[in-house]
Amino acid sequence: MRIAIPLFDRFTALDAVGPYEVLKFLPDAEIVFVAEEPGPVRDVPKWLAISADAAFADVDFCDVLLVPGGPGSRSLLQDDKLLGWIRRMHQGSVWTTSVCTGSLLLAAAGLLNGLSATTHWGAIDVLESFGATYTPERVVFQGKIVTAAGVSSGIDMALALAAQIADRTTAEAIQLAIEYDPQPPFDAGSPAKAPQAAKDLLARGIR
Amino acid sequence: MRIAIPLFDRFTALDAVGPYEVLKFLPDAEIVFVAEEPGPVRDVPKWLAISADAAFADVDFCDVLLVPGGPGSRSLLQDDKLLGWIRRMHQGSVWTTSVCTGSLLLAAAGLLNGLSATTHWGAIDVLESFGATYTPERVVFQGKIVTAAGVSSGIDMALALAAQIADRTTAEAIQLAIEYDPQPPFDAGSPAKAPQAAKDLLARGIR
Repeated sequence: MRIAIPLFDRFTALDAVGPYEVLKFLPDAEIVFVAEEPGPVRDVPKWLAISADAAFADVDFCDVLLVPGGPGSRSLLQDDKLLGWIRRMHQGSVWTTSVCTGSLLLAAAGLLNGLSATTHWGAIDVLESFGATYTPERVVFQGKIVTAAGVSSGIDMALALAAQIADRTTAEAIQLAIEYDPQPPFDAGSPAKAPQAAKDLLARGIR
Repeated sequence: MRIAIPLFDRFTALDAVGPYEVLKFLPDAEIVFVAEEPGPVRDVPKWLAISADAAFADVDFCDVLLVPGGPGSRSLLQDDKLLGWIRRMHQGSVWTTSVCTGSLLLAAAGLLNGLSATTHWGAIDVLESFGATYTPERVVFQGKIVTAAGVSSGIDMALALAAQIADRTTAEAIQLAIEYDPQPPFDAGSPAKAPQAAKDLLARGIR
């Protein structure tokens, strides 16, 4: 079972690595990071690079497509190379998935037209501009397309997906393996829950 | 504020990338991935590589040391190069932290002797063999040393640390930025919670 994760300049690493750490446990899984050219691909502060081991041109099929998001996704909403590759992967995929603003790329590729989907809470308007209907859930299944909300939601999405691909016991065993028993010290992980002071600080820019 | 994250062959990527995505938002943070030699460092199925941008020999100080774990940590419990570097970083650090079996490396470096600490639930005996007292909590603060439990716990640890380094509102703003509102589809993230069938499957090997 080939799982392909595209990388692009200014992606968000946790969008990709969260689900990666879950899906890598699946029986028969093999995961490949793909980019326009093989080699290291940098995230947004440029402090982290993950190696792409294959070029888009070298990967013509996958069972599971997992598209991460990140600030760089906004620059790629008309990028024919990436969007064309996403469309080709989707044609043959069993599951087509995204995390965070990765759903903007699925939407820009025309895959979410008329469907319910989710994305990072800060990107709802862009998602809807491509004909998707934003749904304020953490993980949204629509046939073979699965979208997840912002950044950290990819872990929840991948566990739900693992149960579909394998079974619930397998997904639970993976959850135990990564000791995913989340205990956030605060309860500020969504706009509905975050204190106004945190929202204001984020709007101004933390750094 | 320099944050250094050492990488080694067969590390677990989420141990490093979870806290990275939190700490990168901190004002004045600069994060560097470090390894014995600069270049890509592979995780355990070898499908993922993160670039080390500096060698241990080039980094002689950091404010925050963040040691990830992974299967490869068990081969490094007598590795003078890595352990010596960890000891040198700890001498000057404001915070010395670990995720998962990264705490075995802190312990092997002699930093946890007589202290309470945590680790992945599967590594408790090794942790205690180095003189630490295992504490079944997700994040354990002991002075400037902070240890976190398995893999995904690094996100919780980093949010708690962000509140200490900056303040609670900053940590909450980061939590909102990464939409960390966890909703695991199952409740199997610790040995106390996982169904026996999942524990049995993991013990046999999922793959």
